[in-house]
Amino acid sequence: MNTFHSPQKFLLESGETLPELDIAYHTFGSLNEKKDNVVWVCHALTANSDVTDWWPHTVEAGCFLDPDKWFVVCANIIGSCYGSTGPMTINPETGEPYYDKFPNLTIRDMVNAHRILAKELGIGRINTLVGCSVGGFQAIEWAAMEPERFDKFIFLATSPKATPWSIALDETQRMAILSDKTYGEKRPDAAKDGLAAARAIGLLSYRGPWGYNKTQQDPISDDIPKTHRACTYQRYQGEKLVRRFDAYSYMTILNAFDTHDVGRGRGGVDKVLSTIKAPAIVIGLTTDIIFLPDEMRELCRKLPNAKYFEIQSEFGHDGFLVEHQQLNDILTKN
Amino acid sequence: MNTFHSPQKFLLESGETLPELDIAYHTFGSLNEKKDNVVWVCHALTANSDVTDWWPHTVEAGCFLDPDKWFVVCANIIGSCYGSTGPMTINPETGEPYYDKFPNLTIRDMVNAHRILAKELGIGRINTLVGCSVGGFQAIEWAAMEPERFDKFIFLATSPKATPWSIALDETQRMAILSDKTYGEKRPDAAKDGLAAARAIGLLSYRGPWGYNKTQQDPISDDIPKTHRACTYQRYQGEKLVRRFDAYSYMTILNAFDTHDVGRGRGGVDKVLSTIKAPAIVIGLTTDIIFLPDEMRELCRKLPNAKYFEIQSEFGHDGFLVEHQQLNDILTKN
Repeated sequence: MNTFHSPQKFLLESGETLPELDIAYHTFGSLNEKKDNVVWVCHALTANSDVTDWWPHTVEAGCFLDPDKWFVVCANIIGSCYGSTGPMTINPETGEPYYDKFPNLTIRDMVNAHRILAKELGIGRINTLVGCSVGGFQAIEWAAMEPERFDKFIFLATSPKATPWSIALDETQRMAILSDKTYGEKRPDAAKDGLAAARAIGLLSYRGPWGYNKTQQDPISDDIPKTHRACTYQRYQGEKLVRRFDAYSYMTILNAFDTHDVGRGRGGVDKVLSTIKAPAIVIGLTTDIIFLPDEMRELCRKLPNAKYFEIQSEFGHDGFLVEHQQLNDILTKN
Repeated sequence: MNTFHSPQKFLLESGETLPELDIAYHTFGSLNEKKDNVVWVCHALTANSDVTDWWPHTVEAGCFLDPDKWFVVCANIIGSCYGSTGPMTINPETGEPYYDKFPNLTIRDMVNAHRILAKELGIGRINTLVGCSVGGFQAIEWAAMEPERFDKFIFLATSPKATPWSIALDETQRMAILSDKTYGEKRPDAAKDGLAAARAIGLLSYRGPWGYNKTQQDPISDDIPKTHRACTYQRYQGEKLVRRFDAYSYMTILNAFDTHDVGRGRGGVDKVLSTIKAPAIVIGLTTDIIFLPDEMRELCRKLPNAKYFEIQSEFGHDGFLVEHQQLNDILTKN
């Protein structure tokens, strides 16, 4: 992991500022002489800049992020806790982490931070911009800001605007975090039970009914069950996140996602999408209950030069992480 | 509301006992001379015995629970807080409510309590047994216990066994409640924030993506949104439940639901369903993400004498409460 430190004040969309900026990033492969082989990957919610860590079988020879061919860049979003400036960063004004006093962010702020990094890395034109899930929020936003900068887009299981449903999912997670009365305490593991519950809510939406019913069946028994595999799974997933994330960063990122509206102040979603003219590949998942296949088809229709593909999966939204064979098949051939 | 008090010890499936039993119930219409016009309605999660309160346009002239024709009975499930014995009942051994010391229940316990009430009311044969959602858990269980007692069944958006997905939904709600550190305190409003978050999780599953996206769109604005209709809705629904329910009853009922398995100790689900020979109407909802239409069709196939109907709705599982016109249409004609 590399970290770029920008000592300049960073102006947020809200009008607030961050006094300085750290941006953690990974690169894979090399920038060629023509500098025309850049693929920029935008990561989702609790992921990090190491694409190989969270997106198996993509940054590999023969796969769509083949590092022999592409110079793949992924930067940790601001607000996160994987190296970029976020609630766990020391606030130079107080000498301690921001915790719940970190300013409100928007997707536009996340993208603007990454544009600063791109400049630092000497990257002008970007061949392909990839965003999946809430990484797609950033990708669509960046596409709207600089439609001419990219040769191609890959928008995967995402949306040009946060839907009421996705916002309700986030609000429910916030309710779970805030019901843990340790939220607000000045320590990284504050509200860890609330965060675990929030993660479990997220999991429900990532996997959906088919995912659980496929993988979490209990063994047949004549006794009254004391617990269930699905219970153990939810708790385990909650605890696993708590070991690697914190409630303050989680809240900051959820809040930012809910502000996502590529059309805000630009005449609306449809108008903005019509300006994104480079070829785009839009991919939906058959059982995704967050970003519905119908919504993905609608996104595709509103982009002037887009093709729609659908991944068959029983794993819901998480299919984008699981079905790497279908994914690579679509993206290496199109 | 009437309350039947049974002074006898009530043996639970777990082997534990309740020292006595209260069962709250409502009746609508009159028992005819032949005593062959009984319709027994099993209610869901946080509902009560007053069907007119939670299921609009059903207990009305011309509707499927027409009180001029039928003697409709609905009893509050044990474990609940609407008059039947539950965690808020005074434990005669301690002189204070059970709170989190109420014994574990199963669906079979709920049904057995209602069988005692039926006897008290002089009800032998029951014309129609109706259960929707987790009310259907009780209905299918009762059908399995006494298949010859009923002329007809109506199983609506339900399941013969709790699925891993429905259990994961419940476990996540438990995690939210337990992350509220006031759980365990001896007061009826303990863990109220956790309960509100749990309800919000429930709501997500009841309404689903189409329900939220239809009713909770924000007005278009050029400003960064400070909040969203979907957020207000989630919080409002959480607060609304907290005013009428308590975390201990909620936990007791969720736990009971997860034990639901009509085949337990009886040779499995399929074998048991094959013994439920009276005509059954099985109804699914097109956008239900808890009890999927495919699962409802499967339930229908496994019952020897069942017909399947599907309600078209954008309101997910809650469609069974919203789409009363389609519902009455199906049930008055079939």
